[in-house]
Amino acid sequence: MRADLLSRLLSLLPEPSGRPELRQYAEMLRDYPQRGGKGIRSELLLASARAHGVRPGTAEWEGALWLAAGLELFQNWVLIHDDIEDDSEERRGRPALHRLHGLPLALNAGDALHAYMWAAVWRSGVTGAMEAFLDMIHRTAEGQHLDLSWVEHGEWALGPADYLEMVRLKTAYYTVVVPLQLGARAAGTEPHPDFEAAGLALGAAFQIRDDVLNLAGDPVKYGKEIAGDLLEGKRTLIVLHWLSSAPDNQRQAFLAQMRRPRAEKDAAVIAQLHQWLLDSGSVAHAQALADTEAARGLTLLEQAFARLDPQSAVPAAAQELLGAMRALATRDA
Amino acid sequence: MRADLLSRLLSLLPEPSGRPELRQYAEMLRDYPQRGGKGIRSELLLASARAHGVRPGTAEWEGALWLAAGLELFQNWVLIHDDIEDDSEERRGRPALHRLHGLPLALNAGDALHAYMWAAVWRSGVTGAMEAFLDMIHRTAEGQHLDLSWVEHGEWALGPADYLEMVRLKTAYYTVVVPLQLGARAAGTEPHPDFEAAGLALGAAFQIRDDVLNLAGDPVKYGKEIAGDLLEGKRTLIVLHWLSSAPDNQRQAFLAQMRRPRAEKDAAVIAQLHQWLLDSGSVAHAQALADTEAARGLTLLEQAFARLDPQSAVPAAAQELLGAMRALATRDA
Repeated sequence: MRADLLSRLLSLLPEPSGRPELRQYAEMLRDYPQRGGKGIRSELLLASARAHGVRPGTAEWEGALWLAAGLELFQNWVLIHDDIEDDSEERRGRPALHRLHGLPLALNAGDALHAYMWAAVWRSGVTGAMEAFLDMIHRTAEGQHLDLSWVEHGEWALGPADYLEMVRLKTAYYTVVVPLQLGARAAGTEPHPDFEAAGLALGAAFQIRDDVLNLAGDPVKYGKEIAGDLLEGKRTLIVLHWLSSAPDNQRQAFLAQMRRPRAEKDAAVIAQLHQWLLDSGSVAHAQALADTEAARGLTLLEQAFARLDPQSAVPAAAQELLGAMRALATRDA
Repeated sequence: MRADLLSRLLSLLPEPSGRPELRQYAEMLRDYPQRGGKGIRSELLLASARAHGVRPGTAEWEGALWLAAGLELFQNWVLIHDDIEDDSEERRGRPALHRLHGLPLALNAGDALHAYMWAAVWRSGVTGAMEAFLDMIHRTAEGQHLDLSWVEHGEWALGPADYLEMVRLKTAYYTVVVPLQLGARAAGTEPHPDFEAAGLALGAAFQIRDDVLNLAGDPVKYGKEIAGDLLEGKRTLIVLHWLSSAPDNQRQAFLAQMRRPRAEKDAAVIAQLHQWLLDSGSVAHAQALADTEAARGLTLLEQAFARLDPQSAVPAAAQELLGAMRALATRDA
């Protein structure tokens, strides 16, 4: 995220002081935010605020900046807890927090960071922001519950509709819908009702693109472990589509491998599964659906911005936002 | 907690609906609150509000009730996460949430419950409540970090001062200091400055009493597993005091046992350690310190209430509160 936003976010957190254990506590809170996330959600929120006529330097802009800091705090505490839930090894090129300090201390640090997220929302003074964050957390937790319960119960009898329901709840709200809406709220206006449908479509496109890159991306550009989703047993649209038509021997090999915990998965079999997925039409099918969803979301969004109050709306800023959304849905990294 | 407060708390949470996984999610959020905690903290908050002149049926009382629901939500999400951090087996007579549903789903449910705590604080409309909850979470997380990091690093070179610092942060703020202060805030008054020192002393007395009961309580009245703290390797005042003067062979036996994970601890050795602790003067020493702290806290609290604005303060309610605090510090269960 941009440097001034990071400073703002860090200014809410306790400074390392006192006995060594408590200094470590304060440093753990600062760790993930300082690892340099892209800040996609805060940028989207600020672009939406500008498109709604919020000008840098005003009190409204200050409110938007605190909301942007709140979104980034949300992203960071959720990542700490996600990494525990998935027992991930790495985050942004370094070991996950619970791999550095053990699960109990990392869980506790995530809880504290969660509380500071509310401090940012509170500081914004933006009407409706508390309710928006509460609703966002509820939906994200529902989506996370779907995803985790499928893993917990070894559930693979799932179709594209299940995937889309999970991804809309888990990713689309906090990545696109809520940032768009909060930009409007920072301007003191009720969000356009179509932001929800537009954001759900664009958010799904964003996540499907992420799943495609995880299997078929350029390792150098993508930056994460290729096929990591297979090792973690993620339910992706690609895998669910492939399972519905894969030869029986391939499907059985896949399910047998997925029953194993991550540490006991066989690298050679995973490589074979990876190749089968790449050779099937399922990657292309998923990318096609992502393209359709992205186009539908962009059209809805364009129309919504065209209908904003012309007194306050800033068409150039709206165009910039649409361009950024387009780039997200077709990104290589 | 009292039935009307439980209903109020549950009214904030999502109703079970939708697909089976999402119904389960909503039921997990309701599980711990419905297991029937004592509601010590909410009662203390309401007693403090009454002592500050808040009368049932008024708008101020409504604010106090939302804050009380917020405190109970805090207690419940913290217990879900605590049980994960300590890998506890039971909570209020039933398996801990992560033992019923697995760690990932329980962690996620605790996060959602945390968010609903803020909804209760927000609904109270009480000035200063957001800041009070944020400060409470920060202190509790610091105390939890101290306790967990000692376990993580096998640290036993600790004295009574370390224990008291940990317990004040981890227990005293959210159990006594903050409930006392929030009662004043619900009445629209700035909390008396001595509530902090009084609450820290009473909170420490409360926790030391809990530690004493865990080793030397009546199993039927106490309701929890006697000597469970030894199995969990808890740093209690009793153990730290005993370690400072125990015969070397006993201390070595203790430390060797504490290096083992809970599942590998030897029941016969734990029983022997338990007996050594009971035979030493350390239980009586801890109880004496608890009595001193309780008396000091009660005196401070009595003086603070005597100095409240006589226009609004309700002496009978203050006496009732002091009686409840006295009972807590000398309780058998």
